[in-house]
Amino acid sequence: MEIKSLFEKAVELDGKAVEAEGWVRNLRDSKSFAFIELNDGTDFRSVQVVMDENTENFEELKKLYLSSAIRVKGTLVMTPEMQQPFEIKATSIVVEGESTADYPLQPKRHTREYLRTIAHLRARTNLFRATFRVRSVLAYAIHKFFQDRGFLYAQTPLISAFDGEGAGEIFHVTNLDLKNIPKNDDGSVDFSQDFFGKPVNLAVTGQLEGETMAQAFRNIYTFGPTFRADHSNTKNHLAEFWMVEPEMAFCDLKGNMDVAEAMMKFIIRYTLDTCPEEMQFLDKFVEKGLIEKLEKIANSNFARITYTEAIDIIRHADHKFDVIPNWGDDLQREHERYLAEVHSDGPTFVTDYPKEIKAFYMKLNPDGKTVAACDLLVPGIGEIIGGSQREENYEVLLNKMKDFKLNAEDYSWYLDLRKYGSTIHSGYGLGFERMVMYMTGVDNVRDVALYPRTVNNCEF
Amino acid sequence: MEIKSLFEKAVELDGKAVEAEGWVRNLRDSKSFAFIELNDGTDFRSVQVVMDENTENFEELKKLYLSSAIRVKGTLVMTPEMQQPFEIKATSIVVEGESTADYPLQPKRHTREYLRTIAHLRARTNLFRATFRVRSVLAYAIHKFFQDRGFLYAQTPLISAFDGEGAGEIFHVTNLDLKNIPKNDDGSVDFSQDFFGKPVNLAVTGQLEGETMAQAFRNIYTFGPTFRADHSNTKNHLAEFWMVEPEMAFCDLKGNMDVAEAMMKFIIRYTLDTCPEEMQFLDKFVEKGLIEKLEKIANSNFARITYTEAIDIIRHADHKFDVIPNWGDDLQREHERYLAEVHSDGPTFVTDYPKEIKAFYMKLNPDGKTVAACDLLVPGIGEIIGGSQREENYEVLLNKMKDFKLNAEDYSWYLDLRKYGSTIHSGYGLGFERMVMYMTGVDNVRDVALYPRTVNNCEF
Repeated sequence: MEIKSLFEKAVELDGKAVEAEGWVRNLRDSKSFAFIELNDGTDFRSVQVVMDENTENFEELKKLYLSSAIRVKGTLVMTPEMQQPFEIKATSIVVEGESTADYPLQPKRHTREYLRTIAHLRARTNLFRATFRVRSVLAYAIHKFFQDRGFLYAQTPLISAFDGEGAGEIFHVTNLDLKNIPKNDDGSVDFSQDFFGKPVNLAVTGQLEGETMAQAFRNIYTFGPTFRADHSNTKNHLAEFWMVEPEMAFCDLKGNMDVAEAMMKFIIRYTLDTCPEEMQFLDKFVEKGLIEKLEKIANSNFARITYTEAIDIIRHADHKFDVIPNWGDDLQREHERYLAEVHSDGPTFVTDYPKEIKAFYMKLNPDGKTVAACDLLVPGIGEIIGGSQREENYEVLLNKMKDFKLNAEDYSWYLDLRKYGSTIHSGYGLGFERMVMYMTGVDNVRDVALYPRTVNNCEF
Repeated sequence: MEIKSLFEKAVELDGKAVEAEGWVRNLRDSKSFAFIELNDGTDFRSVQVVMDENTENFEELKKLYLSSAIRVKGTLVMTPEMQQPFEIKATSIVVEGESTADYPLQPKRHTREYLRTIAHLRARTNLFRATFRVRSVLAYAIHKFFQDRGFLYAQTPLISAFDGEGAGEIFHVTNLDLKNIPKNDDGSVDFSQDFFGKPVNLAVTGQLEGETMAQAFRNIYTFGPTFRADHSNTKNHLAEFWMVEPEMAFCDLKGNMDVAEAMMKFIIRYTLDTCPEEMQFLDKFVEKGLIEKLEKIANSNFARITYTEAIDIIRHADHKFDVIPNWGDDLQREHERYLAEVHSDGPTFVTDYPKEIKAFYMKLNPDGKTVAACDLLVPGIGEIIGGSQREENYEVLLNKMKDFKLNAEDYSWYLDLRKYGSTIHSGYGLGFERMVMYMTGVDNVRDVALYPRTVNNCEF
């Protein structure tokens, strides 16, 4: 029986024979007793298994190594006076898979750097059991939020013939033999011999394909991997990460923020409710006050200010910044955090940024200087969501593409959306790993991805 | 208001003022009336909008091109005597985005080949609205099935340093300039200059990483893209497709089949219930009898026979096959279909295949000749799921890897799972596009992926 089920049904199983399987996470023994902390990963909590002389092979079992896989038969007994609600008095234990004395996860503190070198085993520690479970539940909460509202899940392609936004370095994808790249007479690569007959790369966004689907289904979301070949080796950069990108037709900037705010509150609430044990662990050992921080967000009304107001607020703030921004400058993390933490004391949308510092597809405002963008800033980290109303006017979009030195021919299908029944429409992007970090308090992105891909690192 | 909401609330909105947005899917006009078929993609059904002289700009609006985006104000009126349950009598219509006379989707039959050339618009047709909605709901049903049962969603990496199962051609991923690949003195590629410092490729499976997670969380599933550089240009091959790969610790082959059977029934039932309009359309226009076929599967007990029995059944069948298989041969599609369609008349697991025709990681049976594999065959297409119990014995697995000429060093972390508390464990793979084809009746995989990637084809 799964340990999760034992916890759920403990009261009715009191005094009854039960079977459980799992791994030995700890073992304490005395002459006449031994206690196994048994966990199978279905529940964050472990079950205490009690052995004594009545347990078959008691003396042998006392020598079990950590992480041995066992099958336990015994009696479930409620223990109202103890910390754990029940224990299993074992009558017999079968060892399904032995472990070794040099099992790499001994019961002591391991550094996260070391744990990354054994990423295939680290999911067996409390930290990663909590983090990866929260990641899984958060992912489901995102699907649930959108599907309950009728949004279409658009699984956009990852192999792409164009480089998305012209932003950041890309990974090439090829079936050619890298040792013998075929060349044309002029020295260029002969892509006609490659799998797709032309150069292709890994997608940096699914937004543009997402927009095509929003013009058919009104409300859609993508949720899939994206890739950046940035050589940044920081706590916040992965070469492969997951993005959530909703797109809504007949939806302006305000509607966009309404959806983003509702989504943030829903996925936080859902995860807090679904993972109470994991969240308490993370609150206690990773980020003190984590649950309080998240509860506050789930129950707050997000502030909404314009970029112009934000610049004004920062320039008049009684606060020492490393950099004082002028109108037209991008906001730095210190500014974003000030706005969310001090000025609003809560999540804050900043809207209507200067057009020069935002992407080409963002809707030009009537002032001709700003675009209908909205970044969501949250206490602790700053920007967590970037979104905008999209430019729906064919001519304006075409001119913006020229300003950004993009080749309009590459985007003909994207421009088509503005020819055949264009709509006011909006969308945003949420970096999923960033959200997992915010939800768990884990401060290095390498520890929220199962197998992180970074510069010079592609293990497992 | 979304058209889906109008359908849900029509009775209470009867006689009331409503607003709706959407695209003109059709327009019929006479001198004094005009009827717009309005759809916004939130509901498969369209709403009939009635214009007459009381509608502002009536004469202008009669000339609207197909696919124009409009905002309608009017009165909702129940129409119990008509085919559609209600209509909107328009008082005013605002055109948000005009269309053109040469809009590529005119109301006539377009070939699917043509529609693939305008994949950014084809989602506006009934066929693709039905197919992509079913795809989206089916994806959610998969998440729901596993999350409701406590399975961890494992988002395994797509950039991989090893080639999975040694099966099929792979795509290289590189940040090197393909025109100027740096070389070592011996002429080999100098991968130290590449992003990851070594050769990497796109993952062909997430199973092995999935197994590492199952040894921590007991029950996990992957659901993400996988890649094959096979040059097969058939109705069934994509270079990029999505796979579902559950892995369960403390679970044998029988338990594996139990989960697969329960999953198939659940996701079919959920999709039938959630997409009645789409399924009726597909049943009527794409595959006659589709719903009956699926209902039968959702309500059947899946047959279970061994490979050895299957060979015996086929060799004694009163049926003409192109090829009569001997024991040891792989089953061809004609055999699979005979077993599911004629012999069992329903979904059929075939188990315990000869070890030579299955992957190295499958559990060797006590007979030393077969492995604990299970393929699920369904009427109409044959194999839809491939699974097995995994070899949990370190020595046996190591020998199997030698037999398959795999380099054990590349798999050291996979072998570790057999050293530190190995468990009886099992899993299977479901090709998601194949499942969408089965669920929709659409017979070409290029028409169930939003933007299909195939040999010499990477558009949009």
